[in-house]
Amino acid sequence: MKKLFFTVLGLFLLVTTFAQPVRKEVVLPNLPGYETLKCDFHMHTVFSDGSVWPTVRVEEAWVEGLDAISITDHLEYTPKKEYLPVNHNAPYAIAQRAAEQAGLILIKGTEVTKSMPPGHFNALFVKDAEKIFNTDYKAALREAKNQGAYIIWNHPGWIAQAPNGAKWMDAHQELYEEKLFSAIEVVNHNEWYPEALDWAISKNLTVMSNSDVHDPVPAYLAREGMAHRPITLVFAKERTAEAIREALEAGRTLGWLNDLVFGKEEWLTQLFSACVTTSKPFSSSDKNINVKLTNLSDLPFELINKEKESQVVQLPAHSSVMLTLPKEAPARVYKVKNLFSGSASNLEVTIRPAK
Amino acid sequence: MKKLFFTVLGLFLLVTTFAQPVRKEVVLPNLPGYETLKCDFHMHTVFSDGSVWPTVRVEEAWVEGLDAISITDHLEYTPKKEYLPVNHNAPYAIAQRAAEQAGLILIKGTEVTKSMPPGHFNALFVKDAEKIFNTDYKAALREAKNQGAYIIWNHPGWIAQAPNGAKWMDAHQELYEEKLFSAIEVVNHNEWYPEALDWAISKNLTVMSNSDVHDPVPAYLAREGMAHRPITLVFAKERTAEAIREALEAGRTLGWLNDLVFGKEEWLTQLFSACVTTSKPFSSSDKNINVKLTNLSDLPFELINKEKESQVVQLPAHSSVMLTLPKEAPARVYKVKNLFSGSASNLEVTIRPAK
Amino acid sequence: MKKLFFTVLGLFLLVTTFAQPVRKEVVLPNLPGYETLKCDFHMHTVFSDGSVWPTVRVEEAWVEGLDAISITDHLEYTPKKEYLPVNHNAPYAIAQRAAEQAGLILIKGTEVTKSMPPGHFNALFVKDAEKIFNTDYKAALREAKNQGAYIIWNHPGWIAQAPNGAKWMDAHQELYEEKLFSAIEVVNHNEWYPEALDWAISKNLTVMSNSDVHDPVPAYLAREGMAHRPITLVFAKERTAEAIREALEAGRTLGWLNDLVFGKEEWLTQLFSACVTTSKPFSSSDKNINVKLTNLSDLPFELINKEKESQVVQLPAHSSVMLTLPKEAPARVYKVKNLFSGSASNLEVTIRPAK
Amino acid sequence: MKKLFFTVLGLFLLVTTFAQPVRKEVVLPNLPGYETLKCDFHMHTVFSDGSVWPTVRVEEAWVEGLDAISITDHLEYTPKKEYLPVNHNAPYAIAQRAAEQAGLILIKGTEVTKSMPPGHFNALFVKDAEKIFNTDYKAALREAKNQGAYIIWNHPGWIAQAPNGAKWMDAHQELYEEKLFSAIEVVNHNEWYPEALDWAISKNLTVMSNSDVHDPVPAYLAREGMAHRPITLVFAKERTAEAIREALEAGRTLGWLNDLVFGKEEWLTQLFSACVTTSKPFSSSDKNINVKLTNLSDLPFELINKEKESQVVQLPAHSSVMLTLPKEAPARVYKVKNLFSGSASNLEVTIRPAK
Repeated sequence: MKKLFFTVLGLFLLVTTFAQPVRKEVVLPNLPGYETLKCDFHMHTVFSDGSVWPTVRVEEAWVEGLDAISITDHLEYTPKKEYLPVNHNAPYAIAQRAAEQAGLILIKGTEVTKSMPPGHFNALFVKDAEKIFNTDYKAALREAKNQGAYIIWNHPGWIAQAPNGAKWMDAHQELYEEKLFSAIEVVNHNEWYPEALDWAISKNLTVMSNSDVHDPVPAYLAREGMAHRPITLVFAKERTAEAIREALEAGRTLGWLNDLVFGKEEWLTQLFSACVTTSKPFSSSDKNINVKLTNLSDLPFELINKEKESQVVQLPAHSSVMLTLPKEAPARVYKVKNLFSGSASNLEVTIRPAK
Repeated sequence: MKKLFFTVLGLFLLVTTFAQPVRKEVVLPNLPGYETLKCDFHMHTVFSDGSVWPTVRVEEAWVEGLDAISITDHLEYTPKKEYLPVNHNAPYAIAQRAAEQAGLILIKGTEVTKSMPPGHFNALFVKDAEKIFNTDYKAALREAKNQGAYIIWNHPGWIAQAPNGAKWMDAHQELYEEKLFSAIEVVNHNEWYPEALDWAISKNLTVMSNSDVHDPVPAYLAREGMAHRPITLVFAKERTAEAIREALEAGRTLGWLNDLVFGKEEWLTQLFSACVTTSKPFSSSDKNINVKLTNLSDLPFELINKEKESQVVQLPAHSSVMLTLPKEAPARVYKVKNLFSGSASNLEVTIRPAK
Repeated sequence: MKKLFFTVLGLFLLVTTFAQPVRKEVVLPNLPGYETLKCDFHMHTVFSDGSVWPTVRVEEAWVEGLDAISITDHLEYTPKKEYLPVNHNAPYAIAQRAAEQAGLILIKGTEVTKSMPPGHFNALFVKDAEKIFNTDYKAALREAKNQGAYIIWNHPGWIAQAPNGAKWMDAHQELYEEKLFSAIEVVNHNEWYPEALDWAISKNLTVMSNSDVHDPVPAYLAREGMAHRPITLVFAKERTAEAIREALEAGRTLGWLNDLVFGKEEWLTQLFSACVTTSKPFSSSDKNINVKLTNLSDLPFELINKEKESQVVQLPAHSSVMLTLPKEAPARVYKVKNLFSGSASNLEVTIRPAK
Repeated sequence: MKKLFFTVLGLFLLVTTFAQPVRKEVVLPNLPGYETLKCDFHMHTVFSDGSVWPTVRVEEAWVEGLDAISITDHLEYTPKKEYLPVNHNAPYAIAQRAAEQAGLILIKGTEVTKSMPPGHFNALFVKDAEKIFNTDYKAALREAKNQGAYIIWNHPGWIAQAPNGAKWMDAHQELYEEKLFSAIEVVNHNEWYPEALDWAISKNLTVMSNSDVHDPVPAYLAREGMAHRPITLVFAKERTAEAIREALEAGRTLGWLNDLVFGKEEWLTQLFSACVTTSKPFSSSDKNINVKLTNLSDLPFELINKEKESQVVQLPAHSSVMLTLPKEAPARVYKVKNLFSGSASNLEVTIRPAK
């Protein structure tokens, strides 16, 4: 008998190794005609109130399997200036080369940071962040727009600014009418703003789910008990900054927080269809057939039988479960508990055996 | 702010749920023209010296993502007979319905259990196990063959029977010449028999990697520190017992133990190609290009630069790493440390950027 | 530079190892005067409707860190009898030697299995299980009592027998008055019966939390999504069957399911005090002091500030958190969300800095 | 039946929570008369070539269960100065308040960074790092010494400076004789220098195992495949900076890398004795007794039977294993494979049943 045997002594080989970062790929399928890009459009560094050098944001995003990020340091809040001179264009300048080498899309951004109303706004695809700094928020956002920025209303329900929940105020209506923002964070950090999801649907704003991370991402995830940072899924025609811009303008996004995915029904439906497959019927009896429901994605699904809500099917990532369906009418409607097409509405799907 | 908040009180919902087994899918790609079936052709139950009821073997295999199993209780060793009457056809009879309902392929088997030489042999696809029982091992194997069995030489290097390592004795030569076995276990339980791999290649025997599990599989895996049981990968034209039989006879298998895969070079090469993809070149400098190497399978790979063996690339499951290749000749030969085409030979692969 | 380097080739050492089972110790402190024994008094084998040989129950309990178990196969339900002759004393007889060698306490038991009322009852410390079999439930329980049994009312709220929740019926009152049961399962398998906890308190029944496992424990835990089986914590004067009997009769138990512990306030208070320690005050400012709260046990705690219920402190296993307390009155009352002294009452604890 | 049921809808409670960092306590026992302090005396921030703000080093150390750290930015290498003005005293000044609030011991340090010979040296307990900067390495170390520093020779075998392995050169001998260093890194980052362990023993230098981390610790651990950073265990009379200083001067340390612990035999012996306990004998037969070996620490042990080296006992963290010893002479000598008292010598321990 030869035993496979792991030995501590076996560890001491005198070999020079080059420890490389490993990118954990996020397994989510592309949709017909679109690549599913994993993005985070809101984060900070030492150049505002974050605690890491800009290159760390690139390295973190790469190992976590992200495709695109934007560093969005505050224009108005720079508490490290005693040691580190204020420089709003530095984060992008510093991180750019690392992103290029990693094949990661880095979008130049900044955060216009005002009290409520109107609160905080991220400007993506900016040219010169310094010039956007302005005590007048409208002037700041107009300058961003002039630079060609794509603008997001950040964390509309942040308790420090919205202790009674997110409110759509006159100031927001004015900015909205002037098209000074086009997207809204439905999720920020560890928070979920249900009103924002409904506004996104009714006012045709693009759904965002961003981390707003300040410290190293793994520290943030551990503290918040999260397995991955909030991610904005962007369905883009290709893996380029331009294609992301086009997809954002077309509203082709979903937000992802923990096991929840939310946004426009169209994209939820397509995502579910791409993730979950059903087998042909087998093991039929007089009354019933069995089918195997398989989910090869990283996203678990929880299905509630619409006719009998106590029947819940857990379909974890990379797994299958068996369903028994009536032979006569082998189809069943489920509400997908973790897919939200509105603050109070779950995606509905019909499960049928494959043919 | 609305916080996502998990609460113990939230646990106490008065809902009737039906906890279902979940099948963890083994993510390994199919090969061109063949389905990659995950099989284990050697295991025991209370009907010989195992400790579980036959249905447990079906349930375990299903949740572990296997496609086919054979229960192969000993004909000659039935230590529970004081309580449980000997019945060599019972395991299949008991497990058959459960397998059918689960869509799992159950192959009727038994183990002819003799001292060395010639040792133990599994007969698969048998009709009546009772009739195979015979004190004369040749008579037993001939009866199995008459029933149409496919026969495996089990654990040729088991220390209890081969304290000095696996030996190909006259008895084995006779059985081999009479075609009374067609396959050989290169791995059994937690053991690896390198001689058996070389015999499989040189004598055209089909490579097997089986668990020979006696206790519940999770107990066995925990005790042996293994993440999954030994698996025989069968490349079959379809997911049926007949197609498995055809693939075994054609020798289209690989063995899988922990992170090691072994067998004929042809199938190793195809498996690697199906698992690992290379990106287009990017971020090129004057001298070098970068490429991303991606492995979306459950099997990690460890690559050694053939020209400079100290350079090792770890490519875990579901992940990517970056390689830097010379611009002039952007190709590199690696030895795949965990893929064995012989007891002392690793598969070699050439990595080039995609076009 | 010498790199520590793990290599697959390093695995192939020709060493004979003896893979041993490893017992994961459950880290829970003893209480003053008592050892904290981890027990499960309800489980099945192939000798009724379970799927494992009796020795498996010993092996599982040992590796899971349990101290005592009872195998309690049904007297009235033996669906495997076509293959396995009925024998109610066999499970204990078979498992006894394995338990002895493992240093595990094995208590001979059986399950009296009747329709509701009165339902199912476990008899522990029985002498001859065969003799207890009787179509008349009172006769059965009286025979058990005559043999010196300690009797538990099992799963009083099992939906198959109590579709509208647990009911204390006349039949139960009669058995209770005749002292034909002394304990009650507040938890069984994956179910929690809040009424049973309140009855245990008000009627002075001993609290039980048992697995009632039928298949291999790891399969059951995976299917139910549980990290450990339900456990009855018994506070015994020593690690013997007799001391367990004495502790059960004295009612010194707590039930444990997932992260929940429940039972009499006295034992909850002692358990919390033994698990959680507070540091001396430090880093004081004008107004506040900091203290470190440390939990070195395997049981996490969730603390709710009684004065401000939105303030929740998570204190996971083997970890510490920092609390800031007012300097003037450095004490705070918390409700321990996962410790239940009644179906609707959480244990209250006062946290103060150490002196 | 009341089912415990976790529901995604249950997540959406409108509760304000305050996510707090949680400190994972490292479970290692104190030694008689000494507290076992977990320390890391070598790390970087943005103020030299690291990538995090100094407060991150405090937060990381706290959540990882460390007791003391020293930030030791390079005096001579400050590649971020284009954006961040050089300031060698800033890291300590910035991190000090956070350390105080966390109850973490922060030792002011710096790294004298010279080419080989003599290489890099950490000065701990310095007063003014700026003043230590000097192009003459002896002058630099003398100034450090004048400030009362405790000095460590860092990574003596770092491949960039010692491509042929660690060498004790004349320069080192001079510094040693002038007592310009008192300790040596046997482990740095992911490297192990066996010569340095032998020098530590023969020349009475204090053993160090430090991280030299530059990026966020979790990123470093993931990339290197390590479960915890290298730690210097300091056996101190109390949990203060002064007591650490005293312990370093007295040489009461062990180094810890992955599962390996190394240093002077005296402390290895004491650590093993404090971690591992043996039960009384039980289940004795004519020839043998059983004993249970229990390890309640976070450190696994691998024991090799000295008389029969193929017999290996794995004793993981928080677990027990069973040993069978001969009744006549129930004692056995094991070599502890992961405890090194010299580059080629393992600690030997004798296991006997408790009385």
